[in-house]
Amino acid sequence: MSIYLDDIPLTEAKERFEAALKSIGMWGILGVEELPLDEKVIGRVLAEAVFAKISSPHYHAAAMDGFAVLSANTTGAMPSSPVDLPCERESSSSRAAYVDTGDLLPEWADAVIPIENVESINLNGSIAENIRQPALIRIRSAVTPWSHVRPMGEDIVATQLVLPAGHILRPVDLGAIAACGHHKIFVARKPRVAILPTGSELIPIGTPIHPGEIIEYNSVVLAAQINQWGGVATRYPITPDTFEEIYRCVVQASETCDLILLNAGSSAGSEDYSGKVIEALGEALVHGVAIRPGHPVILGVIGVNEGLKKATPIIGVPGYPVSAALTGEIFVEPVIAQWLGRSSISYPKVKASITRKVTSPPGDDDYLRVIVGRVGEKVLAAPLSRGSGVITSLVNADGIVILPRGSQGLDAGAEVEVRLYRNSEELDTTIFAIGSHDITLDLMAQFLATRGRRLSSANVGSLGGLIAIRRGETHIAGSHLLDMSSGEYNLSYIRQ
Amino acid sequence: MSIYLDDIPLTEAKERFEAALKSIGMWGILGVEELPLDEKVIGRVLAEAVFAKISSPHYHAAAMDGFAVLSANTTGAMPSSPVDLPCERESSSSRAAYVDTGDLLPEWADAVIPIENVESINLNGSIAENIRQPALIRIRSAVTPWSHVRPMGEDIVATQLVLPAGHILRPVDLGAIAACGHHKIFVARKPRVAILPTGSELIPIGTPIHPGEIIEYNSVVLAAQINQWGGVATRYPITPDTFEEIYRCVVQASETCDLILLNAGSSAGSEDYSGKVIEALGEALVHGVAIRPGHPVILGVIGVNEGLKKATPIIGVPGYPVSAALTGEIFVEPVIAQWLGRSSISYPKVKASITRKVTSPPGDDDYLRVIVGRVGEKVLAAPLSRGSGVITSLVNADGIVILPRGSQGLDAGAEVEVRLYRNSEELDTTIFAIGSHDITLDLMAQFLATRGRRLSSANVGSLGGLIAIRRGETHIAGSHLLDMSSGEYNLSYIRQ
Repeated sequence: MSIYLDDIPLTEAKERFEAALKSIGMWGILGVEELPLDEKVIGRVLAEAVFAKISSPHYHAAAMDGFAVLSANTTGAMPSSPVDLPCERESSSSRAAYVDTGDLLPEWADAVIPIENVESINLNGSIAENIRQPALIRIRSAVTPWSHVRPMGEDIVATQLVLPAGHILRPVDLGAIAACGHHKIFVARKPRVAILPTGSELIPIGTPIHPGEIIEYNSVVLAAQINQWGGVATRYPITPDTFEEIYRCVVQASETCDLILLNAGSSAGSEDYSGKVIEALGEALVHGVAIRPGHPVILGVIGVNEGLKKATPIIGVPGYPVSAALTGEIFVEPVIAQWLGRSSISYPKVKASITRKVTSPPGDDDYLRVIVGRVGEKVLAAPLSRGSGVITSLVNADGIVILPRGSQGLDAGAEVEVRLYRNSEELDTTIFAIGSHDITLDLMAQFLATRGRRLSSANVGSLGGLIAIRRGETHIAGSHLLDMSSGEYNLSYIRQ
Repeated sequence: MSIYLDDIPLTEAKERFEAALKSIGMWGILGVEELPLDEKVIGRVLAEAVFAKISSPHYHAAAMDGFAVLSANTTGAMPSSPVDLPCERESSSSRAAYVDTGDLLPEWADAVIPIENVESINLNGSIAENIRQPALIRIRSAVTPWSHVRPMGEDIVATQLVLPAGHILRPVDLGAIAACGHHKIFVARKPRVAILPTGSELIPIGTPIHPGEIIEYNSVVLAAQINQWGGVATRYPITPDTFEEIYRCVVQASETCDLILLNAGSSAGSEDYSGKVIEALGEALVHGVAIRPGHPVILGVIGVNEGLKKATPIIGVPGYPVSAALTGEIFVEPVIAQWLGRSSISYPKVKASITRKVTSPPGDDDYLRVIVGRVGEKVLAAPLSRGSGVITSLVNADGIVILPRGSQGLDAGAEVEVRLYRNSEELDTTIFAIGSHDITLDLMAQFLATRGRRLSSANVGSLGGLIAIRRGETHIAGSHLLDMSSGEYNLSYIRQ
């Protein structure tokens, strides 16, 4: 048993996993599903391009309520010399016909005159009782061909590409697909992901808790991620740390799912069985990736050679919550994306100046959680806790700064690129707080949240907050510094 | 009956509607729902702030597999003068105890030494068979207090604010809420929205179609929008254009929903009954808003004074598909947002240069659909079709430029702010095509889509495309220009 994992670079780890997925025929769309076109398909990914079956409009349509005419018949109409056109219903000599918006234009017509621009009159010249069914209409201005007409194909021409395969369906897309004659669509089948929480110290959410017990919530976070990315997650009950029980559970999950997430036990401790179970049922292609947090990841495939019904990819997900959630983003999301035939999620990015010195292990890609705010002209990124057990560092993060392999860290003030979890617009409505935590910051955060604004705060202690204020690098700072000589809080430190 | 609508400015229209909602007690969260904490709550909006019930960790926990010790007992340990600590199980003289990551630290301990940093030995100094259960551990380096320990409250301190009310739940949030001792959450009840398609010319999606008939898809687009924004949409069957049937349908919908969307018939034509039905059952506060497209909007409230069981807001949604979808964005989304207690959706924005002259009615807020791309150093916005019947102008739009009331339009090259429908990062992977449409553009769009890139194209005709190329304002241009004198395509025009 190896105590130390052999961390390999992230790109190599991903390449090995991709090669293994290809070798078992699990690269690309897993299957196609035919669905009726309705609002339930939102977020699904088109497996086939949508080409127009019919044009839209599928006929020349009136664009206004008014009278359909042949434009040539209006030539020469002037305020002083109007043109009268007969429009009696059922008459073959009719040269004008009332149409509502959207109505089919009569074959002999090529324009519509809006009802407010004509005089509807009787044969004797008096105003018609029903302005929509007069004997004649009187026109005092010529019209050009196709005025107030939506010509056939104005929106969509039959046979044209309306939406490409790989497109994620949004509300307006459904309109375009319906408009061009489809009532069914073909989308990628949702990948099925089994999530297996393992650990004798784990207890389910909602159970009375004792010291030494850990509330098992990684499976909920991972399931929510999977569903959000377009998969279908199945959470299994907690399995205790024994080889046999984990083995049995993995075999069972492999029969129905496309991917197994085994969480945790992916490290190399005495009770870490993930690696052993995966090796017993197939192969661990990668055990340890050079990323922080989250390095004890296992990427493997279990398979038919070991008596299973089919080959199934499996990921050993580290147990610390930040590691688990980042393993989802880094390894699981791209796999689901390609199984759905869509692009992997792209994050908005922003350049920012880091507020303090950061050291980083040079061998690893280091995922630094930061808050981001605009103070004056500067966009600032303040690092949050680096502990992989600190889930609030992800909850409170506005984004991630990746310190690549080879980097030993950053000096304060260094420019970094932040991969934002929020819309970059939201930076302008964020109050940036660096300093000591204070209950008033909680109250302010709640107050701002109900007004569409945010408070992003990083806890660097009171003195750090005062220094940030002096540097113009925070909007506000919590501070509780007692001057022992004067008995005063804060004031003497502010003077300093 | 007024033929012309009285368009009022957008802000005034919204203020009138807000005042009416307040007067019937429908401003703010509609109700609170208690839900178990699991992955199904993603996207729901917290109705109550989450304060920590317990700390996380809720005890001092080992952060590594190793031996718990009291750091003071390791003082003076050096490579040349190791310290041995007894660690027999069940012994009261034990000064070291094996712990797995996450285990409770014994009360007498304040640090953990990772297993790879100790020698596990028997009483006689030989290496222990089971390195986790030795008689002694030998330490050759002193440890500081709290090293390799996750102290209680490292992540979350009991009573602190974890998430504010109004927060939209994301996967990692569920972890933090579980970690601090909650197993239920309180979220805003989903607003119920009834969508009533009306129109004798309408046929449902999937019905054989004839000239003059219109495929009814606005209700699907609106329902998808509502669901995406956090409401629950109910689509009613198509109602023919008669006052009685629409009246009956509105009365029925008002009994179970929080908002009615009546589509279409919101204009003032002979078969437009929305206004009449709303006036019969309550009040149309606004009939016509100074926006393009989408001006024939009705905002009203129907109510108890007219014999209904409760007051219900109602929006008459224009029939043209672009108008209908934008009415959703402009009027419906903000109402749903405040009923959920969340902020209204904010869009990323980008500054761009408009590629051609645009005229705009000075009395209206004009919603111009544009494609956006980066060509060289320039970010360019090219206007798409302005027809309110052209749903593909929304499908293909990368964003919206709002030309405010008072603006008569834009000159080519003017700087505009685009409200993006996409992530601004995607601009850099977008091929920008201005010119004539061509089947090869369809093929290229499909090719790029499967590779995580996009083609955004605006149809301005062949000559427009060639001019854009000369100006450096497009990546590619479709062109089919026949030179009648030479019989050649394109070449002579390119020379010009």
